[in-house]
Amino acid sequence: MPDPIQRPPGAGQEFMERTKYRCLGRSDQEKGIPQPPLELPPAPGLPVIDLVKPEDIVIPPLDLRAAIERRHSVRLYQREPISQEELSFLLWCTQGVRYVHGSAATFRTVPSAGARHAFETYLLVNDVSDLEPGLYRYLALSHRLQQIPSDPDIHIKIAHGFMDQDFVMRCSVAFLWTAVCYRMTWRYGERGYRDLHLDAGHVCQNLYLAAEAIGCGVCALAAFDDDLMAAILGIDGTGQFMIYGATVGKT
Amino acid sequence: MPDPIQRPPGAGQEFMERTKYRCLGRSDQEKGIPQPPLELPPAPGLPVIDLVKPEDIVIPPLDLRAAIERRHSVRLYQREPISQEELSFLLWCTQGVRYVHGSAATFRTVPSAGARHAFETYLLVNDVSDLEPGLYRYLALSHRLQQIPSDPDIHIKIAHGFMDQDFVMRCSVAFLWTAVCYRMTWRYGERGYRDLHLDAGHVCQNLYLAAEAIGCGVCALAAFDDDLMAAILGIDGTGQFMIYGATVGKT
Repeated sequence: MPDPIQRPPGAGQEFMERTKYRCLGRSDQEKGIPQPPLELPPAPGLPVIDLVKPEDIVIPPLDLRAAIERRHSVRLYQREPISQEELSFLLWCTQGVRYVHGSAATFRTVPSAGARHAFETYLLVNDVSDLEPGLYRYLALSHRLQQIPSDPDIHIKIAHGFMDQDFVMRCSVAFLWTAVCYRMTWRYGERGYRDLHLDAGHVCQNLYLAAEAIGCGVCALAAFDDDLMAAILGIDGTGQFMIYGATVGKT
Repeated sequence: MPDPIQRPPGAGQEFMERTKYRCLGRSDQEKGIPQPPLELPPAPGLPVIDLVKPEDIVIPPLDLRAAIERRHSVRLYQREPISQEELSFLLWCTQGVRYVHGSAATFRTVPSAGARHAFETYLLVNDVSDLEPGLYRYLALSHRLQQIPSDPDIHIKIAHGFMDQDFVMRCSVAFLWTAVCYRMTWRYGERGYRDLHLDAGHVCQNLYLAAEAIGCGVCALAAFDDDLMAAILGIDGTGQFMIYGATVGKT
């Protein structure tokens, strides 16, 4: 046994046990309950910002293998903004919607269990050209951003939410991925919580690689105060919860 | 609330709750307990197969963005083997060890929480040139393969373990990622189960992209019978458990 210590099953092992197929009941989909929407609606009354359209994004070519072999986690960034076009590229590569299958599913630049795509991406913008610093949400279906009202010290709060990892304050942009849980569990039940984490890993890996193409480095951040982050993002923390994060900046 | 149904917290929500930082005790690392090894040792007495060295692998160039935009899940494959060189490339891109920091950590072609890299990769080989069909384990530290004794119907058993998704029998190779849990939880405690799933997502995303470069398609497989897979792989299912899988074949 790899774990040398005898101890009772913890939260992780219990979760794995209780999400085995024989422990799952019928899913809401199997019960005929309608599926939830593909995206949370934009907040009413707040301005929406068009991003550079995916087909108009021009970035230097980069060989896939070089991107994979060069990638490493970067916590120290140049004091240099990233452009809106570069931000658009990162959002496109991480959650961009390639096509929509009616109201049933989206197909994106990343894979998702059963094409559930249960994430909403929030951004802490510190230094992006022509974009006011602050908190934003990516509207993936229309490839736009919506600014969310936040305090001037939002970067300090979010760095605090990331267990005081100070470089969060000095990145150009931080990605904060939240899961709208029911979009996944509607089909997969409690096992969907596994899928959500697997899916978040797909997304973050594409961020790492896409960043290489624009001279940026990334540091993935799985250590955060769940409740504090939920409060900062204005989400309930259970139906929608923060699942993963990452900082990006020029290297 | 996205979930329209009022119900008590399930296994997933309880897991998320119990893996919040305030619910975690001191980790074994914090208690001064020595860390587990970086890799499970090769099985004694079984032959080991050298893979084409990473620096000797020649694959066609592919632009990162094209790889990301082209990627989609593929379940139907050509009846054509992949080469050992191609297999070496896929293993390199998913778990390849770029360097080893003493006995403390490995740095690989994918990121891992705290560089814990808690996976052991198993392969179901159906159709790889000059490689006997069967079950293998990747020895990442030395970039080699070790064949694990298995029955001639191992492909049928593994397809059954993947909830009878028949295309598993027709892929060239299936990746079966297992987590050696304590390699992660030694540092992160029960929250490490989140990290393991996030990390498995990184790995699978690189497989999707690397496969594009060699004319292959991938289908990620999160649906499997945990206990059956553990039995097939000869692992205990708790200290080491299957966490994710994927099929690969020529398109």
